[in-house]
Amino acid sequence: MELKIGVIGIGAIGQDHMKRITNTLSKGRVVAVTDVNRQQAKAIVDAFSLDARIYEDGHQLIQSDEVDAVIVTSWGPTHEEYVLAAIEANKPVFCEKPLATTAEGCIRIVEAEMKKGKLLVQVGYMRRYDSGYRALKQVLDEGQVGEPLIIHAAHRNQTVPDTYTGDMSIVDTFIHEIDVHRWLLNDEYVSVQVIAPKKTQQAAEHLQDPLIVIMKTQQGTIINGEIFVHCQYGYDIQCQIVGENGMASLPDPASVVLHSQATRSTNILTDWQHRFKAAYDEELQDWINSSLKGEVNGPTAWDGYVAAVTADACLKAKATGETTPIHLQERPAFYHQSFVPEKV
Amino acid sequence: MELKIGVIGIGAIGQDHMKRITNTLSKGRVVAVTDVNRQQAKAIVDAFSLDARIYEDGHQLIQSDEVDAVIVTSWGPTHEEYVLAAIEANKPVFCEKPLATTAEGCIRIVEAEMKKGKLLVQVGYMRRYDSGYRALKQVLDEGQVGEPLIIHAAHRNQTVPDTYTGDMSIVDTFIHEIDVHRWLLNDEYVSVQVIAPKKTQQAAEHLQDPLIVIMKTQQGTIINGEIFVHCQYGYDIQCQIVGENGMASLPDPASVVLHSQATRSTNILTDWQHRFKAAYDEELQDWINSSLKGEVNGPTAWDGYVAAVTADACLKAKATGETTPIHLQERPAFYHQSFVPEKV
Amino acid sequence: MELKIGVIGIGAIGQDHMKRITNTLSKGRVVAVTDVNRQQAKAIVDAFSLDARIYEDGHQLIQSDEVDAVIVTSWGPTHEEYVLAAIEANKPVFCEKPLATTAEGCIRIVEAEMKKGKLLVQVGYMRRYDSGYRALKQVLDEGQVGEPLIIHAAHRNQTVPDTYTGDMSIVDTFIHEIDVHRWLLNDEYVSVQVIAPKKTQQAAEHLQDPLIVIMKTQQGTIINGEIFVHCQYGYDIQCQIVGENGMASLPDPASVVLHSQATRSTNILTDWQHRFKAAYDEELQDWINSSLKGEVNGPTAWDGYVAAVTADACLKAKATGETTPIHLQERPAFYHQSFVPEKV
Amino acid sequence: MELKIGVIGIGAIGQDHMKRITNTLSKGRVVAVTDVNRQQAKAIVDAFSLDARIYEDGHQLIQSDEVDAVIVTSWGPTHEEYVLAAIEANKPVFCEKPLATTAEGCIRIVEAEMKKGKLLVQVGYMRRYDSGYRALKQVLDEGQVGEPLIIHAAHRNQTVPDTYTGDMSIVDTFIHEIDVHRWLLNDEYVSVQVIAPKKTQQAAEHLQDPLIVIMKTQQGTIINGEIFVHCQYGYDIQCQIVGENGMASLPDPASVVLHSQATRSTNILTDWQHRFKAAYDEELQDWINSSLKGEVNGPTAWDGYVAAVTADACLKAKATGETTPIHLQERPAFYHQSFVPEKV
Repeated sequence: MELKIGVIGIGAIGQDHMKRITNTLSKGRVVAVTDVNRQQAKAIVDAFSLDARIYEDGHQLIQSDEVDAVIVTSWGPTHEEYVLAAIEANKPVFCEKPLATTAEGCIRIVEAEMKKGKLLVQVGYMRRYDSGYRALKQVLDEGQVGEPLIIHAAHRNQTVPDTYTGDMSIVDTFIHEIDVHRWLLNDEYVSVQVIAPKKTQQAAEHLQDPLIVIMKTQQGTIINGEIFVHCQYGYDIQCQIVGENGMASLPDPASVVLHSQATRSTNILTDWQHRFKAAYDEELQDWINSSLKGEVNGPTAWDGYVAAVTADACLKAKATGETTPIHLQERPAFYHQSFVPEKV
Repeated sequence: MELKIGVIGIGAIGQDHMKRITNTLSKGRVVAVTDVNRQQAKAIVDAFSLDARIYEDGHQLIQSDEVDAVIVTSWGPTHEEYVLAAIEANKPVFCEKPLATTAEGCIRIVEAEMKKGKLLVQVGYMRRYDSGYRALKQVLDEGQVGEPLIIHAAHRNQTVPDTYTGDMSIVDTFIHEIDVHRWLLNDEYVSVQVIAPKKTQQAAEHLQDPLIVIMKTQQGTIINGEIFVHCQYGYDIQCQIVGENGMASLPDPASVVLHSQATRSTNILTDWQHRFKAAYDEELQDWINSSLKGEVNGPTAWDGYVAAVTADACLKAKATGETTPIHLQERPAFYHQSFVPEKV
Repeated sequence: MELKIGVIGIGAIGQDHMKRITNTLSKGRVVAVTDVNRQQAKAIVDAFSLDARIYEDGHQLIQSDEVDAVIVTSWGPTHEEYVLAAIEANKPVFCEKPLATTAEGCIRIVEAEMKKGKLLVQVGYMRRYDSGYRALKQVLDEGQVGEPLIIHAAHRNQTVPDTYTGDMSIVDTFIHEIDVHRWLLNDEYVSVQVIAPKKTQQAAEHLQDPLIVIMKTQQGTIINGEIFVHCQYGYDIQCQIVGENGMASLPDPASVVLHSQATRSTNILTDWQHRFKAAYDEELQDWINSSLKGEVNGPTAWDGYVAAVTADACLKAKATGETTPIHLQERPAFYHQSFVPEKV
Repeated sequence: MELKIGVIGIGAIGQDHMKRITNTLSKGRVVAVTDVNRQQAKAIVDAFSLDARIYEDGHQLIQSDEVDAVIVTSWGPTHEEYVLAAIEANKPVFCEKPLATTAEGCIRIVEAEMKKGKLLVQVGYMRRYDSGYRALKQVLDEGQVGEPLIIHAAHRNQTVPDTYTGDMSIVDTFIHEIDVHRWLLNDEYVSVQVIAPKKTQQAAEHLQDPLIVIMKTQQGTIINGEIFVHCQYGYDIQCQIVGENGMASLPDPASVVLHSQATRSTNILTDWQHRFKAAYDEELQDWINSSLKGEVNGPTAWDGYVAAVTADACLKAKATGETTPIHLQERPAFYHQSFVPEKV
């Protein structure tokens, strides 16, 4: 059994997914691609020696009989229409974040999927597939640290380009923290506050960096998060759960230990591709496997909606300095299974 | 040369100091003691085989010609009067925290000392003598991590007795964080906010535990502090400085690494006496040495005053949930040297 | 392009390889299987829902036009004949260790392959594909520790069954150390000595456990190796290279850090499957990719021969207690590339 | 109570001990010194502001009524006569290694002390006072790793001067390993083998560096030791005990953890003074305390004898390449207590 996949939008992440389907993963084949730049689409298909048809646009690709399932890696503002079209065509669709650029857009997708009566949409929050986060969730779920009270988290990038603007700290960077902590905790956020420490001289004028983002959940757990996208020293993702009986921390990636010049050292990675490479592989393999079974095992459209609402509240909290409530619609029973992913 | 020391109040910490002066340190000798319980004082002097006179009260002890310098380890509310008396008698005095129970009391001491025109008072903030904090300060002062932007700190106790009440989280526990971070940063606090996470079931009804305390300094650095006095897993003091170019963390105490039963483990200490034993030794030896030279090298009365004012603001912030300003008097030139302690 | 693979012998490791080809890896398909137990072969093919033909024996499978390449995972003493048959049929063959049960058998394979004039054989030393060993080799090759002088290595199993006999310490366990250190060092062994420490009470009467095996290379580097197959605490592979300018150590697998009950701990794995799972995946994917290109990128028949000769010398050294020379034939130019594997 | 101490020989280590007695430790006072260079002795006494008499020679000092106890830190070949004289004078004597330059010299001291019928001699093996080794011994004695089977040990210096010759690897460097492992194990050595790995280019022509020294004990435990005195990267003392049920490792000294420039690093010390500073303090304080009680708590003359015999065997093993037996006289009951030091 093989899943015939169409890819809409073949920028960096789209190409990455095509490569892993072709060279690394099992049971999937890229049979169709489309991109606003058709020239580029043609060049990539040739470079990868793919036997894939190039489509005029995403809608044609989605409707093609040759395509079993769709990956949406186009420009963010186009995600909603392609995801809706895939639902309409009753085809599994993997959509990179954001699911839609607004909470309203996410709700339209949720409603379309519920109307279809079948889970079809997976959103690209790959951290849930990271072996470290998985192990951390297992420790938590087994009660090894007791009830979680505080999560200390940090998302640090070595640096970002000047095109990275203020909102991106939340909607591009912290969005991963938003998804992963509610998944870790099996809980939902109720409010958020944003605090601005002394700004690094490394950041451009328009960017407050670092930031501290403090979210509270329904159960009262505090997520004490740091975003620092010019930390200079590396790409470093930290997560430490303080529970009633103990504490559990996300492992750092393994590295050779070097003793040299009066220091004992290990390497810190400098890019997210390397840090989460295995997670991306697991994520897409799981999507292929689930799609072949007619299921969705990863983050759903509902998770995409929650991320969108929470990110909006974070932005408001950042602008006002106030503790800002996070108002979610009630979760439909249709989506209840998403916190208990099957073992990959 | 030998410093003849009188000790006022010989509870647990008073006895500890007597032991280290007698059995561990150089150049000091306990020649005088007093305690509200004279019976107890007599018993201790005998048990330690000390050739020390037992005085009627602290004032007699302070005024005795046999006493060169005074250690105040009596009940907190009595500290102020004994410190003032020692200043009046022109004798070096080491006072355990608190210097006084109110900011006003601290100011009275500051004014008395300035009037005397000579530094005489050292307050017992021993962390400044901990080799780990010293090394951390050196890394910071050498610019190895660049300008400090955020300090993540945690003060965790395994458990506390039921007599430990709400205010003690600040005035007994966090007070050490208050002193040590302004010393690390060479900076002063301007505001504080206190956040209450989900409460552990291990804490008594009257105690909100854990707490998050967020202080901002004049330079804009954020101290993101956690207090958790029922963490169950051990006595654990964490401090991580995020700077513009890197990050530096307080070392954990060294421990044998055990490989056993499918785990690789090191011990976590369970009591503060063990954790800071060497720091207490360094602190008191430095006080003896400095006193013999007519100097004060450690935390001064001014540092005691700042701690008192900051603790008051923390308590108010805890009660109100509001970000609370911290108003300090201007530091007199008389006290300027205190942030650059001589190498111990 | 897809590699159609026949598997000879479907015990535990054979099934593992079938699973990874089917469910995890790209570009390979199991189209043929055979086993001494045909019933079992049928049951496995059904259980995996494979569209694979069951052959009468290995030779039929090798000669089938449906089979592009062969995996030999049958009983050790049968390896030689199947590998020779695959060479004869001009088909790529992946053979689990041992390549042959004697050095003479290995030489027969080497000669057959050279006669065919084309590299066809890869031997299953998966450690060369372990990310940790790869990183260690890179550190060494880049000169980060200078010339290697000593390697301290340990191979520890939690326990072994009573069927594990004395020779297996060398031919089943230490054989991996034999392969990986000459690969790390780009060097060959010249002698070996075996030392017997105090024996653990956990080992059966017939088994000396632990052992220390000391090998010397042409360059004079000492491999100071420990084998301990009842270490009780876990499956633990250690490798530390002491060079002229520094030291580099194999990383331990990443693990959640748990603070609980006065200990800070990480997990130690207990089985080799888990420890080297990713290495097995990389190994077999590389074999599929290389086979499709008509190349061999991993350990060759020559490496199999060297391992066999070295293991024989280790056994003799163990029996005699003497430092025992290791005599290798001169390496034919045909095999020279094997120490410089292409980046996987 | 105060111990009045005379110091014979005030080179570097003699001065160090004088400093710690005067400035750091309790209950001791340096009242007498002597040195072959009287000018130097005078200068040092003045520099330290000591109220100490300068004696003509060691014998006069030993016999003086002003001296309660003696520290011998003169040139190695003079140790024996001063230790014998101190025994004759019935005074406690602390002697830096070597106790005597020959095993026969050590036996003469042992016999003199037994004849006097009282323990008077302590030898300067300070590692037994190192908190890390103490913790390791406790783990071992409590059976946390079961019966010890192998000890992996390494003694690495950053570099040594050209005056450091071949024998010094054993008699100056490895001698500490000789003392500490029999103490850890409560066991005696029966044989030793020395292996020469590839020599570092950093070592002078006359020096084989590194060396591997393999000692076997009566119980069959193997000490697998490395000596490497030009390791370049730092002063690094490693000790790992592999037992029947687990493994325990000597802790590395605590150090700030720095995240900078894509590396996570801790410092490695570069000198032994820093590494064992606290151990020297503990050692001498314990000697002062014990001397005041008329006891010897640390390494005895017998331990000095065993070290001498073992070092001789190591030198022979190094010269011959052969496994060399270690023949000790039977330990007199007089010395039996030395492996169970009182808690310092």
